[in-house]
Amino acid sequence: MMKPIQVGLIGLGTVGTGVAKVLIERQAWFSKRAGVPIVLKKIATRHPARQRPVRLKPGLVTRNPNDILQDPEIQVVIELVGGLHPAKEWMAAALRAKKHVITANKALLAHHGPEIFKAAARAGVSVHFEASVAGGIPIIKGLREGLVANEIQALYGIINGTSNFILSEMSREGCSFDAALKEAQQRGYAERNPALDLKGIDTAHKLSILSLLAFGKTVQPEEMFVEGIPEITHNDIHYAKDLGYSVKLLAIAKREGNELELRVHPTLLPRQHPLSRVHGVYNAIYVKGDLVGEQLFYGQGAGRWPTASAVLADVVDVARAISAGTSLRSPALDTASAIRRIRPMGEIEGRYYFRFSCIDRPGVLAKIARILGTHHISIASVIQPDRRRDHIVPLIMVTHEARERQVQAALAEIDRLSIIRRKTVAIRIERG
Amino acid sequence: MMKPIQVGLIGLGTVGTGVAKVLIERQAWFSKRAGVPIVLKKIATRHPARQRPVRLKPGLVTRNPNDILQDPEIQVVIELVGGLHPAKEWMAAALRAKKHVITANKALLAHHGPEIFKAAARAGVSVHFEASVAGGIPIIKGLREGLVANEIQALYGIINGTSNFILSEMSREGCSFDAALKEAQQRGYAERNPALDLKGIDTAHKLSILSLLAFGKTVQPEEMFVEGIPEITHNDIHYAKDLGYSVKLLAIAKREGNELELRVHPTLLPRQHPLSRVHGVYNAIYVKGDLVGEQLFYGQGAGRWPTASAVLADVVDVARAISAGTSLRSPALDTASAIRRIRPMGEIEGRYYFRFSCIDRPGVLAKIARILGTHHISIASVIQPDRRRDHIVPLIMVTHEARERQVQAALAEIDRLSIIRRKTVAIRIERG
Repeated sequence: MMKPIQVGLIGLGTVGTGVAKVLIERQAWFSKRAGVPIVLKKIATRHPARQRPVRLKPGLVTRNPNDILQDPEIQVVIELVGGLHPAKEWMAAALRAKKHVITANKALLAHHGPEIFKAAARAGVSVHFEASVAGGIPIIKGLREGLVANEIQALYGIINGTSNFILSEMSREGCSFDAALKEAQQRGYAERNPALDLKGIDTAHKLSILSLLAFGKTVQPEEMFVEGIPEITHNDIHYAKDLGYSVKLLAIAKREGNELELRVHPTLLPRQHPLSRVHGVYNAIYVKGDLVGEQLFYGQGAGRWPTASAVLADVVDVARAISAGTSLRSPALDTASAIRRIRPMGEIEGRYYFRFSCIDRPGVLAKIARILGTHHISIASVIQPDRRRDHIVPLIMVTHEARERQVQAALAEIDRLSIIRRKTVAIRIERG
Repeated sequence: MMKPIQVGLIGLGTVGTGVAKVLIERQAWFSKRAGVPIVLKKIATRHPARQRPVRLKPGLVTRNPNDILQDPEIQVVIELVGGLHPAKEWMAAALRAKKHVITANKALLAHHGPEIFKAAARAGVSVHFEASVAGGIPIIKGLREGLVANEIQALYGIINGTSNFILSEMSREGCSFDAALKEAQQRGYAERNPALDLKGIDTAHKLSILSLLAFGKTVQPEEMFVEGIPEITHNDIHYAKDLGYSVKLLAIAKREGNELELRVHPTLLPRQHPLSRVHGVYNAIYVKGDLVGEQLFYGQGAGRWPTASAVLADVVDVARAISAGTSLRSPALDTASAIRRIRPMGEIEGRYYFRFSCIDRPGVLAKIARILGTHHISIASVIQPDRRRDHIVPLIMVTHEARERQVQAALAEIDRLSIIRRKTVAIRIERG
């Protein structure tokens, strides 16, 4: 009989409860799968008395994380409290005590990843974070191990289920952004304060982590261009559909030589693109590697069980490594990246969808087209879905390849025209 | 400087050449990704003089596999010769010499997996085989590690690119099976003798491997129900489309309690199913786990570079394990399966698509329906696309849930009717 590997869990919310339930109720089965006995020794939570769908033996639960962090028998600490503090301090304490750490904390990794990985390397232990991106989809392992022989050329992710659910709902007849958000909240897919999700910040956190894995490059979310979905209307989604596109909030990472583009924004994707078929709360990551070509990883990106699945895969990884007599199998992350420069947003090139809100009168299109022309932006197609003389109507336009800086300059100029009555909506188009 | 890990490669065909090229031309980069220096020390091939798109130093290539198998410095042997013999003997020799083995040889694993894994466990080394199923898609690692905490409930795979390409081509206007096969051969997607692919045997080999990983159950391909695509016509694909289905050659594994269904056959899948959108030579595996729910892994299932990507991921896995001081990280495969019984084909239940070739005259449908009724098969819908009195015309039917044994009995009886002029085509429908 091998010596069991003892695990401590800090945080007993939605995901923590799922993890605890599997570790407790399926202990024998799970240990067999891992190839080594695994025991959940202690759980720390601020709310030990709360009703949860798992039976917890007396003595298993504590209010004090130090009961885990200072227990020399516990070799693995699962951190599922979220937020920057005190998660960061607890994680640091675990690493100092030479405990392996498993976390789903994307904000913490996005902001403090490098120092956390350094501390782990110093201590000779590992930090696992499969659950930090795309819930149950094994994308971290996929990039770090499965596609390790590839130079990744591009990565596109739908990695925020809340936003994707709202955009999917809005593609239904007559469904506004507000109605879609309300539906998401009623179903438990959106938080009371959904700003982090809808403004793209959660996506940026995850893109920061994916960028480290795919390109060896650490980029703080604050250094990325991040735009959310609140400006997208029901009509934009329908005009896009008529033009052959879906609208998705994408995390985008593209490499060209030693330069990297990293950005988060609503995107028009061709209807045939595999990511166009990712609906509702599902997540997917589309990766292009120089050897494998296109790959798609698709699944549930959130929720108790899918996220617990990812945490538990990490538990097995760590347990197998410990039982094989090594504390650290994966090398420190390859941060000696070949990427020399993050391309500034102004330099990116692509096609654009514009929705102008303009007064419907002769000559409007000419004025807009003239300004676009002076900025070297050429028009691929125009739709004017609604004609009502002297009213404000939408004018929809798709451009050929143009440069972001010139697009912004042109739009600033156009938005000063008296015929333009609201800020123009611009959505970037990706061929994928 | 860490001691380099020395690798030997047996087999320098399409994939072997790709693997060699990366190991030679990107040696420094690849070693950095792995976290440990990796050197390709020797390549064995029967055709050392053949022109290949990689420069091979004098002395690197040998005709004699023993130059690899008996070299004490070589710790890792990559077997890419394919076929059962002498691949099996070479692999056994490598394992006896305590060398880790990496292989893409699905036929060998499907037929001799258990004894190979036992020999590896005895020797304290590992056998890696990511490239044996679905080329560059990391499905082996996905099942064995990424989804390890899940009880897998079902697995559906499009894992033969040749068949999927042909079915995709046949969905185009007027494209026959023969024309599609010819196109596949011209593009290099089908071999001169494509029987292994088209008859489902290659798919069965891969399903045998996936079954071991997903359910801990070893089933020989010969023990599975395997049906290929040659009976499918252009018209079947179009009738299916009209009914809302795609036609795919699927590997199917479904668990119910302690029973497992394993089968390979052409399948009607609802158009909305993620696998319905997998076209051409692409592969995809759709997995349902009790924690993660639905997942899809999608990518290129064959070809030099995608397959090399998988082989090289295994090289990194082994190299990292060796450099971390452990020879064996993953446990022996969990073959103490909870599966007690492989469900015989006669017991499976599902809906069916039938194409009867019958004489068009009054009373035909009544005769067929009566026989189906006596076998407890009820009809969901009927289409008679072509009416030509007293000619042989197709009659298309979709059933409600029925049992395979009764379906076969009914069809045998129907096919003896004088109004039936050709063997009835039956295609199973899966909801997925």
